[in-house]
Order: sequence, then structure tokens, then C-alpha cells
Amino acid sequence: MDTEDILLMLYAVDRDEQWENDLLEKLPGKLQVRWENTRKPDGSIKAADEYDPKIFEGVTMLFTYSPVPADLVPKLRFVQLTSAGSDLWQSHARYLDSGVKFATTSGSNPPQIAEWVIGQWLKFQHHFSIHDESQKKHYWEPSLVRQVEDSVGLRVGILGYGAIGRQVSRLCRALGMEVYAFTASERATPESRALRGFNLPNLGDPQGELPAKWFHGTTKEAVNDFLSQDLDMLVISLPLTKLSRKLIGEEQFRILGKKKAFVVNIARGPILDQGALIEALEHEVIRGAALDVTDPEPLPADHPLWDAKNCVITPHISWLSTHQNKRSRDILTENVVRLFKGETLINELPYKARTHHDD
Amino acid sequence: MDTEDILLMLYAVDRDEQWENDLLEKLPGKLQVRWENTRKPDGSIKAADEYDPKIFEGVTMLFTYSPVPADLVPKLRFVQLTSAGSDLWQSHARYLDSGVKFATTSGSNPPQIAEWVIGQWLKFQHHFSIHDESQKKHYWEPSLVRQVEDSVGLRVGILGYGAIGRQVSRLCRALGMEVYAFTASERATPESRALRGFNLPNLGDPQGELPAKWFHGTTKEAVNDFLSQDLDMLVISLPLTKLSRKLIGEEQFRILGKKKAFVVNIARGPILDQGALIEALEHEVIRGAALDVTDPEPLPADHPLWDAKNCVITPHISWLSTHQNKRSRDILTENVVRLFKGETLINELPYKARTHHDD
Repeated sequence: MDTEDILLMLYAVDRDEQWENDLLEKLPGKLQVRWENTRKPDGSIKAADEYDPKIFEGVTMLFTYSPVPADLVPKLRFVQLTSAGSDLWQSHARYLDSGVKFATTSGSNPPQIAEWVIGQWLKFQHHFSIHDESQKKHYWEPSLVRQVEDSVGLRVGILGYGAIGRQVSRLCRALGMEVYAFTASERATPESRALRGFNLPNLGDPQGELPAKWFHGTTKEAVNDFLSQDLDMLVISLPLTKLSRKLIGEEQFRILGKKKAFVVNIARGPILDQGALIEALEHEVIRGAALDVTDPEPLPADHPLWDAKNCVITPHISWLSTHQNKRSRDILTENVVRLFKGETLINELPYKARTHHDD
Repeated sequence: MDTEDILLMLYAVDRDEQWENDLLEKLPGKLQVRWENTRKPDGSIKAADEYDPKIFEGVTMLFTYSPVPADLVPKLRFVQLTSAGSDLWQSHARYLDSGVKFATTSGSNPPQIAEWVIGQWLKFQHHFSIHDESQKKHYWEPSLVRQVEDSVGLRVGILGYGAIGRQVSRLCRALGMEVYAFTASERATPESRALRGFNLPNLGDPQGELPAKWFHGTTKEAVNDFLSQDLDMLVISLPLTKLSRKLIGEEQFRILGKKKAFVVNIARGPILDQGALIEALEHEVIRGAALDVTDPEPLPADHPLWDAKNCVITPHISWLSTHQNKRSRDILTENVVRLFKGETLINELPYKARTHHDD
């Protein structure tokens, strides 16, 4: 059967016939699916120039994290990103092309990323690393040597209240914390506070009901006002845009010093000024930091951030989960069906937002 | 002013005049308060024979964790334990005396203990210790080397659904887990499922609404049936009684092997058969364990449990929190007031339960 559309799956898994058959049954004769496992033997992900160009022939739809060379996919009409962010694509010719639809998988990864955030917070607050060292020495430390502060009544500031921020919020509330949210746009009405995009059932905060206070703005002053709210923890869950680049620098760390906030970044490395972060950590202006993202990535072996005081770094892995394949492919399936029906996609990135969102 | 009652505060903090004055104002002329800081310079807690016997003279009320020699407190009429468990007291002459009232501070420590439980679970599931080792080597591990399983849809079994188990339950539900509860007695009605005892506002599961299934019984068969419910994690939050001693042994670990459960014990060490636990860990029958309690405590330096595979041990510190003083003293204040009014105490341990609960 002749089909016009070819969907190329650039993903770190082998062909899943069951899923593919389920998709094709929904769209008989309309689609071919081509698989390319992006995982290299050492566990890293292939770069764009490491693919055989032949795999791109005739491709009209992509399921991918990394951009592919624009000239190899001239017939492209739909890209389903496997990530929540689209910053890698921002100067890509197909991204700036009104004829190509883009959608994210925002909302598929909040559980594991929020677990990473709260896991790091609890590990820090409960001195797990120190106890691990004692265990290695078979040393039963007397009980009253360390002080632990539990989370009840503490305040977390969530900078960027999207799908990830909302699942962090749910966990913080279960711990007894008070949640303050920050978004670029004002969310004065219940409708405006609702999540725009995909949400897993019974998770997150789809109606935006959990924050005790909600801040907004696109100026440094607005951000600084938010950061000055006696935060015990700051969670950065914003997209990387021109506005958010180096948003948190020396001045912001000084403000966060009021309660020596714990700073968590699971968004993108360049949102933090890393030089200022190292200074704030070394002088204990803040109590600590947990970073799943750095600038650049991989972080070079001789970078001083590796050894900064009270700082945990993981290699951009907080999105990993064995449940992620199913969740992101459920979104893809639904979006391909909607595409053929001419409907708005789940997590669609409208052309206007792609070209104007951070000017 | 002549007062008959002397309350001795055996606790690891210095005299708190503000709190003491607040208490005495509620009961003018009825009470003296005497303070004894139990903290030794090395951070350990004084044993009963390390006190100057004079501090016990005339004492009628005690705020304490450890038992004190019964013959030093002949006039005792009320003991406010600073712990949720009373196992240390079970053969104490004053505990077996119907003229002495006992109450626990159950419900004051669930936040920090549940944080410890979930923190250990997340640290294990997200390989935090491995990432810490990579960081020490300045090594940016490729992203796809490890698999992470997030908690959504996983099942936790909570063995002992008291105040601590209920806050664990709240956190597990926020993570997207399914909760199965186990209690000794049947909880067939909404009333019977409610927590009996103190609950911090907006935390835990005071009405017992969170478990998807609720199991009960006092036989090995009942426990084994519960353990065979495809549990991904087992949290042990039972009191230590004759019934619960060595409740989890070789047979139970084999049952828990169905889904290679992660086993967490924040109750008392003797509830687990440690030899069987070491075997289950070494043969990877279970995926791992996190223990804040051992048998004995301190665990001797040459004990094989220290080095068991995938096993984290901390020195009975999960109850620690800077918020704990206030919470437990709020319960004490309320109970002293109720005692003078002749009312039932918060978390009272009735004489009958003290003498018959585990026969």
C-alpha cells in the first residue's frame, strides 16, 4: 500500500512491534514507521552526524530528542519531541517553518524528575551521605550528633510552574511544605492557573490549586521579589529562553541567602550563573545545591563545579524512567491520530510561540 | 507555694523557660518542673545509671525516652514517653502498675521518619550513591547506562498502619503508588480505620482513606498473605511485641522476592531476622533494604549486616528533627492539663493494654 507519511523513531529502544501495530491499526494505510535505536554501546546517545543519512529518506514525521540536519528532512511536517523543552531547536530551519508542527512530551516525565528533586532534598536534609560514610567504617554514630530539619512548615519556591513543577509541588505539599509558584504570565483566574498540556492522572496539580501564593513577571525585579520570600528550597523548572539565561546570578543567590535556600536545577544549565553558584556554595550563602543539568554538558572533568561545597551533580538523567517509553509514545500515538484529523495536538508548540516566545 | 507534683524532663535539650512558664500558667501552684539534659558531650544519651539519683527525689511525672530505676520514683503517677513505642518499659514495675498513667508521643515524629523512608527509597531507586561516586571522579556518565524505575503504579505494603505508616502512605500516594495496609485488628468500618491517637494537621491519613486494600490478622498466615501481594516496597512500622519479634524471616523474604521488594525498617530491629535478611540481600532475593534500627543497637563493628549488599544502615536517627521538641512538648502540656482534669490522655496506654497486649 502506498503511504505518503513516514514516521522515524529516533529513540533509545528497539522496535516495539506491539506498539507499532496498535498505531498502524488506528491509521490503516496512512503511515510507515521506521526505527533507529539512538543508544550507542557505551550508553551515550548518537549525535546527528552519526546516523546513516539514508534513514531520513522520505521522512515526514520524527519522534526525537536531538535536532537532525534540516536539509535531510525537507518533507518534514511533524516533530514529536521526546522532551519537555525545545531549546535545542530554537534556530533550526524546520522549527522556524510554519508548515511543520511541533509538540513536546511535557507531562510524561514529571514523576521521575520530581522524585529526583525530592530525593536530593531529603538526602541533603537527612545527611544520608554522611551516614553512608559512617556505615562504610562500621561506625554507629551517637544519635544526637547531627540536627535534622524536617520539611513541615518549610517553604519551597517553584520557578516555572509547568508539569514538572506541579508534581514537585504535590510532593512538597505531602511533606507538609508551603508552596509558592512563579510563572512568567499572571494567573489570576482559576482557568489561567490550569496546566496547559498533558497531565498524568492523579498526579501533579492540574488545576493549580496547591500554591499558597502565586507570583509572576518577566523582569529581574519580579524574580527577585519571588526569591526574597524566605524560601527554604528553590526548584528551577523553567524552559531555557533568552529571558531565563543566567537568571539566577550573584544578586539572586544573595537574596536566597535569607534562609540559606537549597537550590535545585532540573531545567537547563545556563539558567544558573555557575561562577556565582560556586561562590554562593563555598561561602555557604546557600545551604546546598542539586543539579541534574550543567553548562556545558558533559561538564568537563577539570570544571570547579564538580567539587563545590554541598553540591550534588548528576549527568542529566533525572528524566530517565522505565515507564517513560510508554508515556511518551502514548502522547505520540494520540498526536499522530490528531494530525490526520486536523486537530490541535497535545502539547503543541504553535508557530507563533516558536518564533516569538523569548524576544 | 506547696505543690505535690514534680515533673522531671529527661530530654536532650536545655531548660526552656518560655515553654515551662506557659505550662505553669495553665496549672498555677500545682506543679514544679525539673530539667535534666540527657545529652552527653559525645552526642550520645545518658543511661539510667548515669544520673545523679537526687534528680529523682519527689518526682511524680516523667518526660522521658529511657526507663529510670523503678525504686527511684516510688511516687510516680504519670510518664509521658518521648517515643511512639513503649517496648523498653514492658517489664518495668511502674509500667505494670495500674496507678501510673502512661502516654506516648506517637504522631509527633511521622514527618521526619516518613521523609527518611521515602528518601531512602528514592536514593535507592535513582542510584544516588552511584552518581555520588561518579561525581567524586568528575565523571559524566553517559545517560543511558542505568535504568530507573519511577514509583508510579508501584505498590507499597505498610506493615503497621499507625501514625508513621500513615504519613509514609501519604507520601507514597503523592508519588503515584498504590498503598496496601496491614494491621493486627480488622478495620471493616470507617470508624475503625481512623487513627487512634495524635495526628499533625494536614498530614498522614487520619481517616484511613488512602489504602487501596487493607489486610489484618495476628497469624503468620495473615502476614504471609499480605507479603505475597506483589509488593515493590515493604515498610515495617509495627510496635515490637512478642508477636512481631522475628516476624520477617527466611520464609517472608522468599515471599517478598516475587517483585524483589525493597524492605524498610524504621520500627525495631528484632522484628527482622537479621541472618535471614543478610541471606536475602546477598542472593538478591530482595532488591535492597534500609534500616534505621538493628538488633542490637549499637550494631557491633564486626557485625556482617554492615556490609550486606544493597543495605543502608543509619544509627536509629530517623526520629530526629529540630521540630520534634515543640511537637512532643505540646502533647506533654496537653496531657498534664488533662491529668489534672481527670480526662483521658492523648495517646494514653491503658493499663490493660500494657499488661496484656502481646500475650
